Amino acid sequence: MRRAIELAARGLGSTSPNPVVGCVVLDAAGRTVGEGWHQRAGGPHAEVHALRAAGESARGGTALVTLEPCNHTGRTGPCSQALIEAGIARVVYAVADPNPDATGGAATLRAAGIDVEGGLLAAEAARGNEVWLTTLARRRPFVVWKYASTLDGRIAAADGTSRWITSAESRADVHRLRAEADAVVAGSGTLRADDPHLAVRGLDGVTQPLRVVVDTAATVKPGARVLDDAAPTLIAVAQDIGTAHLDGLAETLRLPRAAAGPGLDIPALLTALYERGVRSVLLEGGPTLAGAFVAAGAVDKAVGYLAPVLLGAGPAALADAGITTITQALRLDVTETVRIGPDLRITAYPHAEEN
Amino acid sequence: MRRAIELAARGLGSTSPNPVVGCVVLDAAGRTVGEGWHQRAGGPHAEVHALRAAGESARGGTALVTLEPCNHTGRTGPCSQALIEAGIARVVYAVADPNPDATGGAATLRAAGIDVEGGLLAAEAARGNEVWLTTLARRRPFVVWKYASTLDGRIAAADGTSRWITSAESRADVHRLRAEADAVVAGSGTLRADDPHLAVRGLDGVTQPLRVVVDTAATVKPGARVLDDAAPTLIAVAQDIGTAHLDGLAETLRLPRAAAGPGLDIPALLTALYERGVRSVLLEGGPTLAGAFVAAGAVDKAVGYLAPVLLGAGPAALADAGITTITQALRLDVTETVRIGPDLRITAYPHAEEN
Ligand SMILES: NC(=O)c1ccc[n+]([C@@H]2O[C@H](COP(=O)([O-])OP(=O)(O)OC[C@H]3O[C@@H](n4cnc5c(N)ncnc54)[C@H](OP(=O)(O)O)[C@@H]3O)[C@@H](O)[C@H]2O)c1
Ligand SMILES: NC(=O)c1ccc[n+]([C@@H]2O[C@H](COP(=O)([O-])OP(=O)(O)OC[C@H]3O[C@@H](n4cnc5c(N)ncnc54)[C@H](OP(=O)(O)O)[C@@H]3O)[C@@H](O)[C@H]2O)c1
Repeated sequence: MRRAIELAARGLGSTSPNPVVGCVVLDAAGRTVGEGWHQRAGGPHAEVHALRAAGESARGGTALVTLEPCNHTGRTGPCSQALIEAGIARVVYAVADPNPDATGGAATLRAAGIDVEGGLLAAEAARGNEVWLTTLARRRPFVVWKYASTLDGRIAAADGTSRWITSAESRADVHRLRAEADAVVAGSGTLRADDPHLAVRGLDGVTQPLRVVVDTAATVKPGARVLDDAAPTLIAVAQDIGTAHLDGLAETLRLPRAAAGPGLDIPALLTALYERGVRSVLLEGGPTLAGAFVAAGAVDKAVGYLAPVLLGAGPAALADAGITTITQALRLDVTETVRIGPDLRITAYPHAEEN
Repeated sequence: MRRAIELAARGLGSTSPNPVVGCVVLDAAGRTVGEGWHQRAGGPHAEVHALRAAGESARGGTALVTLEPCNHTGRTGPCSQALIEAGIARVVYAVADPNPDATGGAATLRAAGIDVEGGLLAAEAARGNEVWLTTLARRRPFVVWKYASTLDGRIAAADGTSRWITSAESRADVHRLRAEADAVVAGSGTLRADDPHLAVRGLDGVTQPLRVVVDTAATVKPGARVLDDAAPTLIAVAQDIGTAHLDGLAETLRLPRAAAGPGLDIPALLTALYERGVRSVLLEGGPTLAGAFVAAGAVDKAVGYLAPVLLGAGPAALADAGITTITQALRLDVTETVRIGPDLRITAYPHAEEN
């Protein structure tokens, strides 16, 4: 199953809006005879790939799948049927399928006389499918907030200079995060300060994410790097703002203003992105916009790059999130800490009960 | 030698102003027959403990020592002589002794026909003796800056509440740091905000550190917890400030005011502590005083406890350190990251060339 989870992860960034799924087929003697993963939306499911690789050896064998095999006939046939036809004797899956359209695969398999077991390495597999599972439950994209700061929590020095706080290795790692996301989101402040590009560079064969700028008054200037043709771009603006100067340069998205405070309504932004098929968002900041996301309960995962640097002054990684006293603090669980060059990358998830 | 370095570390906190030293004695056949470490200033050196444990088995054997054996007759006889008398055939040490009063041990041993080798695991052993080596080179105490902050670098919420950002495990770990230090230093702001105790609790058999409050105008109030009798206390004040209200409550130290900016002169504080025999300081903050230490180039090591918490507002872990632009940033190397309960403890050292 661990191998199946590894295989599943290869689909990250290209299966949206589908889950990532990995499958390993063993023959009757327990030897691996087929491996597969769901490679892209519309393409064959993991089970189909693995069964094809296994061929006749699958008969009487076992299929290990990270997600309960689907029961519906979507763009590809139902996997439960394919497993039955291949003569599989036993199916072990990690996570049950919560999707109302696809569920029932385990029951169908059992009805066909197949030995079915669920729950093996479920927590690990669920984390591997966190985007898809969160999206299904919340009807909005999964949001990863990425920030890069000094040990004392600064994203720039007092005079605003910040290139480069983190290392080339960390910046390359951010391109990997971008490649895994359907959309990359930045605020108008970051656009003005940094003129960021927001596309993926230095990685081959990736699907470029949608670049989204949250820019109430449509202040983005023709010539901004985010408007080039490296990736599609969407400028989110207030409903009453003219955007003629952006015609032909970028698509615009009209959103209501935030109910309280400045800027646009974050839940409305996420719903609009979801309706366009965006299932995962990499929120690249800056601190003001990140504060608004935290205040809206819309950060599902935080990835911080901590540079071993001290500044003692300069803007903080996270600005006002509506938290005024310690008991309101957003508490997380750190799941990973790794060195990326000289920096530390910290991955953390908000406590489940607080979301 | 790794074992000798481990043994040496047992002396941390009780050998000041001496180095920590560990020694392993092997017999002629290479079996460990004696172990020792320097336990307290004035007590026998590591070699003497290990040779005593080995007895006659030391004859023809090898001594592995973390520091070049001393050559001077201090409160105990010179170790080079003890090794010669015990009939040791070979001495391997890690770090050469830079102390002008003690150096020459290797030469003495060689002159006596002993096979001597230096430099084994020298970097590791030097780190184990960082306090003593730094102190010798700089003629001021070794300063460890400890801070506890959220992931976004805050030490308190917007309304000042901060109990407890970090976990009970981290707070217990800080008591271990205090126990290893000769003095614990805090600023008057922390004293007013938190009424901290600054003594070691929950650890047996430790030497309490000297509690030092940097309090220009002697604002500490009788009744402050730092004035109790759990540990000695020193209040550093400006030369022109009356301290009659502290008579009988704490010792006071009169210092010049800082050449520029508020408060007292930090180098003068460190020199005064050094002259009182303080070799290691745990700087517990707050952020204003820590900024002054960073500005003075007087932070030798940083230990940060990062709580997996986001606040988005509140004071930062480090205040003004005179750094205004990114090229002036204090760059460090992270040497360790460990989980302490739910928190992360990050240990880092300023780049050597910047100190
Ligand atoms: N180190 C890092 O990880 C990192 C990442 C990104 C940026 N940065 C730095 O961050 C700085 C810029 O950050 P910033 O905080 O000034 O700008 P920002 O967060 O990028 O953008 C803030 C702007 O977003 C717009 N916005 C739209 N809806 C909003 C809402 N609901 N709540 C809040 N804002 C909303 C607002 O402007 P309108 O009203 O005009 O829409 C607001 O001023 C730059 O210095 C950049 O270098 C650092
Ligand atoms: N999370 C943590 O790790 C941690 C640790 C400690 C404190 N804290 C928090 O920090 C806050 C207090 O911090 P703070 O920054 O207000 O106070 P602080 O750093 O504890 O003390 C600052 C004061 O120290 C005195 N001082 C003496 N010499 C100085 C010099 N050369 N440079 C600067 N200051 C000098 C000054 O007051 P005088 O002019 O009166 O001498 C100055 O106002 C509290 O909220 C506390 O809870 C957090």
